[in-house]
Amino acid sequence: MEMTTTVDLEQMGRAAKAASRKLAILTTAQKNAALLAIADALEARADEMLAANALDVAEARDNGLSEALQDRLLLTEKRLAALAADARRVADLPDPVGAEMENRVLPNGLRLIKRRTPLGVVGVIYEARPNVTIDIATLCLKTGNAAILRGGKETLRSNIALAAVIQSALEGSGLPPAAVQYIDDPDRALVAGLLRLDRYVDMIVPRGGAGLHRLCKEQSTIPVITGGIGICHVFVDESADLARAVDIVENAKVQRPSVCNALDTLLVHRAVAPSFLPEVAARLVPLGVELRATPRALAHLPADGVSATEAGPDDFDREWLSLILGVKIVEDLDEAIAHIQQHSTEHSDSILTSDEGNAERFVNEVDSAAVYVNASTRFTDGGQFGLGAEVAVSTQKLHARGPMGLEALTTYKWIGLGDGQIRA
Amino acid sequence: MEMTTTVDLEQMGRAAKAASRKLAILTTAQKNAALLAIADALEARADEMLAANALDVAEARDNGLSEALQDRLLLTEKRLAALAADARRVADLPDPVGAEMENRVLPNGLRLIKRRTPLGVVGVIYEARPNVTIDIATLCLKTGNAAILRGGKETLRSNIALAAVIQSALEGSGLPPAAVQYIDDPDRALVAGLLRLDRYVDMIVPRGGAGLHRLCKEQSTIPVITGGIGICHVFVDESADLARAVDIVENAKVQRPSVCNALDTLLVHRAVAPSFLPEVAARLVPLGVELRATPRALAHLPADGVSATEAGPDDFDREWLSLILGVKIVEDLDEAIAHIQQHSTEHSDSILTSDEGNAERFVNEVDSAAVYVNASTRFTDGGQFGLGAEVAVSTQKLHARGPMGLEALTTYKWIGLGDGQIRA
Repeated sequence: MEMTTTVDLEQMGRAAKAASRKLAILTTAQKNAALLAIADALEARADEMLAANALDVAEARDNGLSEALQDRLLLTEKRLAALAADARRVADLPDPVGAEMENRVLPNGLRLIKRRTPLGVVGVIYEARPNVTIDIATLCLKTGNAAILRGGKETLRSNIALAAVIQSALEGSGLPPAAVQYIDDPDRALVAGLLRLDRYVDMIVPRGGAGLHRLCKEQSTIPVITGGIGICHVFVDESADLARAVDIVENAKVQRPSVCNALDTLLVHRAVAPSFLPEVAARLVPLGVELRATPRALAHLPADGVSATEAGPDDFDREWLSLILGVKIVEDLDEAIAHIQQHSTEHSDSILTSDEGNAERFVNEVDSAAVYVNASTRFTDGGQFGLGAEVAVSTQKLHARGPMGLEALTTYKWIGLGDGQIRA
Repeated sequence: MEMTTTVDLEQMGRAAKAASRKLAILTTAQKNAALLAIADALEARADEMLAANALDVAEARDNGLSEALQDRLLLTEKRLAALAADARRVADLPDPVGAEMENRVLPNGLRLIKRRTPLGVVGVIYEARPNVTIDIATLCLKTGNAAILRGGKETLRSNIALAAVIQSALEGSGLPPAAVQYIDDPDRALVAGLLRLDRYVDMIVPRGGAGLHRLCKEQSTIPVITGGIGICHVFVDESADLARAVDIVENAKVQRPSVCNALDTLLVHRAVAPSFLPEVAARLVPLGVELRATPRALAHLPADGVSATEAGPDDFDREWLSLILGVKIVEDLDEAIAHIQQHSTEHSDSILTSDEGNAERFVNEVDSAAVYVNASTRFTDGGQFGLGAEVAVSTQKLHARGPMGLEALTTYKWIGLGDGQIRA
């Protein structure tokens, strides 16, 4: 493929691999010192990052990007300080690298140790927000990985400035600057190129919409962690505590509708639908929620033709990321589970019930990264789960599932310590 | 893509997924009963499997396949009995499914459980040996996974017969026959089709040569476990116990040269090369080993022009799988590590040394699935590591590395048990 770019991916991959070998043998103290140097530099060199960011924001305004999007890519002194604080928090986290997951002596006297090690080189492809640049760089460094980053074109100048600050902080700490590299050309062919750099890159983490995840699955020769897309369900069973259920549904839908663990589809047992659906509407509609319901559910919802309308054919396969909520009445637990098995992205699903048997069946049969009983879907989050950090939320099953903490950025090696053992 | 096959992969995928949902909620006793039924059927129905196998073997002979290959695909009553014994052994292994990897109460009262669960559907693509059909089927069933199998065309009839026996044993045990399905058409387009069945299949395990692994990496939209290719090194350091070193090199090279953890390249510190290399040659050449050496090493090896010849340009990038051994003299540990970093497939590498510092550097800096100190590379094996079984040997870093036991066929889900928790 012919490219006019000045970016040499092969060279970046080679440099990242070489850097990763140095990072892998650093002490925790050395890695933490680098993280603190990055934090300091984010504050000390705020001006140059803000200047670069101002150009991105101006261009976004000129291109007519929405206020919401402009805000997402905006950096301020306060946001940089928050990023610096985050970097210091990562320095404080325990270092998973070097931990012995097993250590035993085989019958032949060979001591076998399963030791946690860095993955090597991590490639991350993300969209607008420049904070991801710092976030991923610090998590990768903490775990001894080199990173190759590729952000959205809307924040190109900001990301180049952030990467420069990171690299000089690395250099000042005696670490290889190639430990964190940024692909500083918006040419889309470079994404395809990165996805085939399997000689050097050990894992790809896409952070963006369904299209990006599909692209990575289709084109990558490197293992990809897909996730972050949540079509999430709450099933209100016949025996649910309905007062609590309204609170949970409100929380799951309204508290932060733009994120992947927010509620998309409400399933209601037919026995409680006549009493529960009007209550839900009375609580959610004033908060700005629009209901998209099956005809049967619609009969129990406001008839103003605005707050509740009939669901379209694909509406139960959409991640709303907004104040829209799908609503469906189901016959029983079986139909609820069948609906979820068909429509869920296996992210987060919840049952509200007082029946222990039903709770157990739901937990066993709904095959999602996180399944809840009598709780909001909004808890699926590295911070909430006490993992200390969140690299991404995986909805695939290999390597890591659900919120990924620092351990998801590691692998292990088997070490056999012998005194001459040979195989019989 | 147009196919003349009668195999409907979409239908197979859907059936496998449906079966996997039933398998996931079976008790260990139910799964073990099915494994024992398979074992019994392998013995009781030996005749029909041997008849099918005889046709495969006859065709292999007619096609001029080597004796060694003919032997690999041969089934005998004794081999079937051994497979039955293996199935019974798998029944005896502990069931990893359902284990709680974590169980804690979050500050808000939500009980968070990380529970081990089956992966779902596993696709396995393999070559000649029909025993893999039984092997993988039993390991997948034990862990509650459905399997879609695709073996080599040389054993098509044998595999169809084996799969039929498995399926009727499953049916007799009340399990869905679609828990184990075999793609019974040798059309290669079906491999490509299987690799894109990501709606239904959760993991692909290729068991075969480098070409198959590359194909899977390139074409699969499903996570792939690559591995099984071992360019393995032994580095004989300056301080090595040379008498032991000869034993280890012999064991690593000769004990079973056709497998992935056998030795491919011997690296020798220049200080000990003059004394060590003649000893190695004296031991290995009479055992049929051919040495392929750098010119510098060749000076210390037999000059008959047969037992030792000059290594070609790619000889240090080859997995020999035979009685050939690459030999190279290195200046020091640095050069040994650099050589391994450049040529290793990150499978199994060993240092023979009395220097603890060098051993530690080797263990830390050689980034292979298994690294050894003063031991043969031949130990990289699920049985040797005490894993009870071996699904494959992974040389990639995500999910599983090195010998994969039953746990590598599982994932986990997060279960949140609450009493009305909402996110603040």
